[in-house]
Amino acid sequence: MECVAAIDVGGTTMKGGLVARDGTILYAERRPTPRAEGAEQVIAAISAFTGDLSRPRGRMRPVAVGLAVPGLVTPTHAVFSAAFGWRDVPVSAFTDVDLPVALGHDVRAAGEAELVYGAGGGRDVLFLPIGTGIAGAVVLNGSPYGGAGGWAGQIGHIPVRPDGLPCGCGQRGCLAAYASAGAIAARCGEPSAEHVLRRMRQGDQAAAAVWREAVEALALALATYTLLLDPAEIVIGGGLSQAGDALLEPVRARLAERLAFRPAPDVRASRLGVQAGLLGAALLGWGGVAHGGLRRREGARRGCP
Amino acid sequence: MECVAAIDVGGTTMKGGLVARDGTILYAERRPTPRAEGAEQVIAAISAFTGDLSRPRGRMRPVAVGLAVPGLVTPTHAVFSAAFGWRDVPVSAFTDVDLPVALGHDVRAAGEAELVYGAGGGRDVLFLPIGTGIAGAVVLNGSPYGGAGGWAGQIGHIPVRPDGLPCGCGQRGCLAAYASAGAIAARCGEPSAEHVLRRMRQGDQAAAAVWREAVEALALALATYTLLLDPAEIVIGGGLSQAGDALLEPVRARLAERLAFRPAPDVRASRLGVQAGLLGAALLGWGGVAHGGLRRREGARRGCP
Repeated sequence: MECVAAIDVGGTTMKGGLVARDGTILYAERRPTPRAEGAEQVIAAISAFTGDLSRPRGRMRPVAVGLAVPGLVTPTHAVFSAAFGWRDVPVSAFTDVDLPVALGHDVRAAGEAELVYGAGGGRDVLFLPIGTGIAGAVVLNGSPYGGAGGWAGQIGHIPVRPDGLPCGCGQRGCLAAYASAGAIAARCGEPSAEHVLRRMRQGDQAAAAVWREAVEALALALATYTLLLDPAEIVIGGGLSQAGDALLEPVRARLAERLAFRPAPDVRASRLGVQAGLLGAALLGWGGVAHGGLRRREGARRGCP
Repeated sequence: MECVAAIDVGGTTMKGGLVARDGTILYAERRPTPRAEGAEQVIAAISAFTGDLSRPRGRMRPVAVGLAVPGLVTPTHAVFSAAFGWRDVPVSAFTDVDLPVALGHDVRAAGEAELVYGAGGGRDVLFLPIGTGIAGAVVLNGSPYGGAGGWAGQIGHIPVRPDGLPCGCGQRGCLAAYASAGAIAARCGEPSAEHVLRRMRQGDQAAAAVWREAVEALALALATYTLLLDPAEIVIGGGLSQAGDALLEPVRARLAERLAFRPAPDVRASRLGVQAGLLGAALLGWGGVAHGGLRRREGARRGCP
């Protein structure tokens, strides 16, 4: 059975798998991302993972590799990643296998998967995965939009509270400093945002205040996005979307209150959840098959979709 | 000589003219917008103006009418305008003349004119006219982007200072409440932003503080736009752009300081200045000729470009 080997490279975990054309995940495997060991070790770990996934497994025969990574990404290079310390890593460095390989941006690929497999409600959508950090896939006219230089979608670092909390990016008052799962946990001294939610449900006032500030920061960012780009729908994904209505209901209410002269777009949780990234990587792989993607041996000449 | 009759309908002034295909303004005339007299009077004034402009004048023969208006606009209707109290006004209401008539959004049309006549530096541009209010033309992949429902570009009402100054739109902390020429003048009790600039140059501290807050609000809004949409260039137009380096230099400096991990896009003044709207209306008119735009007698069936 034809499938693609897909890997979604996150800051702490690499989610790999074999995925059929209809989005069925035939095999799934997670490995830790050895980020602390440096840029080269992460590349080596990805290469080993693609090698293992690309071997036939029972009746499953991978016909391409799809690789979704963070940062500034072109079809031929991982141009820059602050998280991994990458600069201009060619796609050929990520794998040794002799299959078409398609490289893409993790959040934009996940946004594409939401459109294709998540039954999105429109062609103009913000897809917002919230995990350790926050990035967005800006989907306009049915396609993820990258901007003039490939840097679009950095909604996690827009200044929702000018001169507010410091952010790891070097700026102050960023959305991610209030509303990422990582920030929510860290502000409460808890290992995860889930722990904060549990404390809040037990009546903890400090946890409730941190959650409220996260909701307010999200409402401000989504109001800004709505006024600028008039989306049909906003889809929240990533780990924090598991909070469900504890997150979505107050965000919807505060967003509507922030918008005085226009209605708010629908805000809903991703139907794909944390699998959006893996399915996005798989779509990259299938796109590589369709368009005759780059094979390792050919070097970085031919473009991938 | 073939030309189009173009009218850019602003909140206080209607700028009309006859414009050749190459953007040459052959004849220009301004009339006050009778906004205080109500929705119907504004429509009647526009109709009278189009009628007068559409008559042959010397060797100039108008072959179409281009009409740029604010609010939510489709090719067939001015769907909504808070400024004029319009709801679903059909294009046929705006003119009696038997020429193709093309209706469009004022700021998006002006953005198109900047692209065509202003020698913009890229296909991904924010065009930001700052006058009595602030709206933006979001130009992506070379075309003005309207969003899911035609409401995109409301950058004047993004919350740059959460819970800050009240804005006429009903929200608080909007960009326009700090940085529109109207707000700058009103906050200093002056008739225009030009007067505020003059007071600041004479050493007036209160005027300097208002100007500084306007610059900071613009830097925040442009940082947000840059992080979300990664434009190649930001073009500031409208009356406030006449301030030149007194506005642009501090905005460029504060924008660069607000962006910690990516470079700032170029920020420059519009080369078309306050004529961008009229030239945009003319482009609408020429588009109507090319695509066989709506004629009044045909009713509102055929679409205009």
